[in-house]
Amino acid sequence: MKLSNQPPKGTSDWLPREFKIRQYIFNAWRQVCLRYGYEEYLTPLVESAEIYRAKSGEDVGGKELVTFTDLGGRELSIRPEMTPSVARLVSQIYEAVPKPIRYFSIANFMRNEKPQRGRNREFWQLNCDIFGSNSLNADVEILQIALDIMLALGAPKHSFKLKISSRAILQEVFANLKISDKQTTQVARSLDKWNKLSKAAIEENLTKAGLKKEQIRSLSSFMNSRDLPDMPAAADLRFILKSLADLGYGDYVEYDPTIVRGFDYYDGMVFEIFDNHKDNNRALFGGGRYNGLGALFGGKSWPAVGFAPGDETTRIFLESWDLLDKITEQKIDNYYLPLLNEDLQLKTNFLAKRLREQGLSVALGLEPQKINKALEYANKQGFSRVVIFGSEEAAKKVYKIKDMASGQETKQAFK
Amino acid sequence: MKLSNQPPKGTSDWLPREFKIRQYIFNAWRQVCLRYGYEEYLTPLVESAEIYRAKSGEDVGGKELVTFTDLGGRELSIRPEMTPSVARLVSQIYEAVPKPIRYFSIANFMRNEKPQRGRNREFWQLNCDIFGSNSLNADVEILQIALDIMLALGAPKHSFKLKISSRAILQEVFANLKISDKQTTQVARSLDKWNKLSKAAIEENLTKAGLKKEQIRSLSSFMNSRDLPDMPAAADLRFILKSLADLGYGDYVEYDPTIVRGFDYYDGMVFEIFDNHKDNNRALFGGGRYNGLGALFGGKSWPAVGFAPGDETTRIFLESWDLLDKITEQKIDNYYLPLLNEDLQLKTNFLAKRLREQGLSVALGLEPQKINKALEYANKQGFSRVVIFGSEEAAKKVYKIKDMASGQETKQAFK
Repeated sequence: MKLSNQPPKGTSDWLPREFKIRQYIFNAWRQVCLRYGYEEYLTPLVESAEIYRAKSGEDVGGKELVTFTDLGGRELSIRPEMTPSVARLVSQIYEAVPKPIRYFSIANFMRNEKPQRGRNREFWQLNCDIFGSNSLNADVEILQIALDIMLALGAPKHSFKLKISSRAILQEVFANLKISDKQTTQVARSLDKWNKLSKAAIEENLTKAGLKKEQIRSLSSFMNSRDLPDMPAAADLRFILKSLADLGYGDYVEYDPTIVRGFDYYDGMVFEIFDNHKDNNRALFGGGRYNGLGALFGGKSWPAVGFAPGDETTRIFLESWDLLDKITEQKIDNYYLPLLNEDLQLKTNFLAKRLREQGLSVALGLEPQKINKALEYANKQGFSRVVIFGSEEAAKKVYKIKDMASGQETKQAFK
Repeated sequence: MKLSNQPPKGTSDWLPREFKIRQYIFNAWRQVCLRYGYEEYLTPLVESAEIYRAKSGEDVGGKELVTFTDLGGRELSIRPEMTPSVARLVSQIYEAVPKPIRYFSIANFMRNEKPQRGRNREFWQLNCDIFGSNSLNADVEILQIALDIMLALGAPKHSFKLKISSRAILQEVFANLKISDKQTTQVARSLDKWNKLSKAAIEENLTKAGLKKEQIRSLSSFMNSRDLPDMPAAADLRFILKSLADLGYGDYVEYDPTIVRGFDYYDGMVFEIFDNHKDNNRALFGGGRYNGLGALFGGKSWPAVGFAPGDETTRIFLESWDLLDKITEQKIDNYYLPLLNEDLQLKTNFLAKRLREQGLSVALGLEPQKINKALEYANKQGFSRVVIFGSEEAAKKVYKIKDMASGQETKQAFK
């Protein structure tokens, strides 16, 4: 039987060149989180399906969930996001450890949905969160990390913008406009599509949600302004924006009330990072403050603020700014040691072992090869150096290292 | 609704301490593979279910498979092992690239089976393979890597043994004993349980497979010997054993005909690494040569040799030899910078930024703290150093670094 050699729809293979790109992204994520004193954790690939159903928002818990039944009849899901898992994890230790808890993870996820550009069925995400602090300094720190990650990825100046808003401001606007609690979820979801739908479509949605003309007009004027409104609920965001400006991030940050975020659990600052490239003018990732989730697992609810960038949108960002070649062409120092003389096999093998013990990466020729063929192969494979050890070198108790870029050879003693 | 905060059966959470242990294992795997010139790849979490059903052996493809249906009605499985995926991947590029192909991956897998010690439903594995070489040097290299991984993990001398045999020898023994082709699969599976079942049970299985008393007696004598048999098919294994001894691994390696390996696709050298600890006397992982798998995806079949250690058995090995504490207690150099004076918040934040730019890991105090409370917290959390920056230091345009182990303080200029 002949089977297809392509990966399932909405997933992708990472051959070594592609792996390098993903690893570059993961390294940037990991290095920045570690620099801020965050600790890495991981949860299982699957969770009880009910933990997704218990949490509302963005259709996870609905048809996108990949579910199956285990041997014991439990309904499990491949995780579609990290937040319920990390809330479960933190609830195990929350009372016992000093706060704040600074945690991050890099993991794969799956959603059974129609694949789109930047949104595959399988995807990888960094989840970076700080638990147990209501301080606005925690919000500032999370935003700093998000910005530093963009810079660590090599993002050019003016290539991206962090747009920030606040659920608290939205709540105050809702209260001022006498939008009822029953209406807020539906209204917030409509506002979340502000830049995606036409003005008419949004007005229709808001009318359906029960808003009157006057309410819609006021709401529109709020959504279209880029000045931080002069109201009590804006004080926190004012502090956050000033802190980021003081720390030198002012050019990268702006207030934008159209940032709403789909998930219902956000209840404070919310933000998204946007690609400024004309061909990829879209949100790369986002996050915010969500203080209610701990209660899901029976404890008290605890404060949390975090964000979650994905591998694929980040890759598209790097691609749109022409940064991929720089990553994949980065030369690593790797050695090819051909077997030039079959009689020297043991010695050649020993030489490889010796060089590896020095920490070098050495690929050994498995079959006897003439030097010209060996150099040709090394060139094709992109080795940076070739170790020459033939009868002549063995007789003189030396080996030579040829630098493939410069052609220069150096000699070393070896017996 | 109150949900359980425990992970699903057969899976586990990795809080930071546990994550450190797994990362130590993954780092050892990755570093050794890179040192031998192997390139890292990754395949999707899921595959078309048929690729597991097409391949026989060890019950994968049967009830252990976790399957679900995607939006397009395709039956997919969470990967229970890497071999079919990497065979699929390599078949995309095999003809176009120079041989040999040296590949490795570190990935998570899932089997819907009864969890046992060392065998969870979700598990992580290194898969390290060399494709496109029939040279025995490839077999030697794979065995060297397996041995070097044990040494890189810090395995003490005499703590483990690599036991090796060969399907070719088994074939010749079968031929000599006139065991028919139809019987070999069933007989090989019985022999695979040589050390797990009683002598009587094995004899019963072999009788069921259609063997006569005389055949069973000869087979038993072959299985109980530890001398490499004097037959043509043993020449390859003789070369491999001599090569490993010449390279200095002799103490770690022995011939053992009871190594059969469950998977049917092995057709040359097969090996397993055993823990010698009296409380954990078991196979840690294994591998071997399998030359037929490429044909699954419509190409010609190509030579392959590889192995796959798992995270959980490796962890149990480290535990049985008391190596875990050394890993988790390894001190990393991490700094705690408390906010000693609220008026200095911006400056404190700047200092953190400056130190991070120097590559240091710095966790910032989010709320104002007295110095004693800060030192107490740093101690509890295991920070190696505390950065002291209060009114006094700010006035003198300095900050101090306190080493938490020695108590010593050093002073640095900062304005």
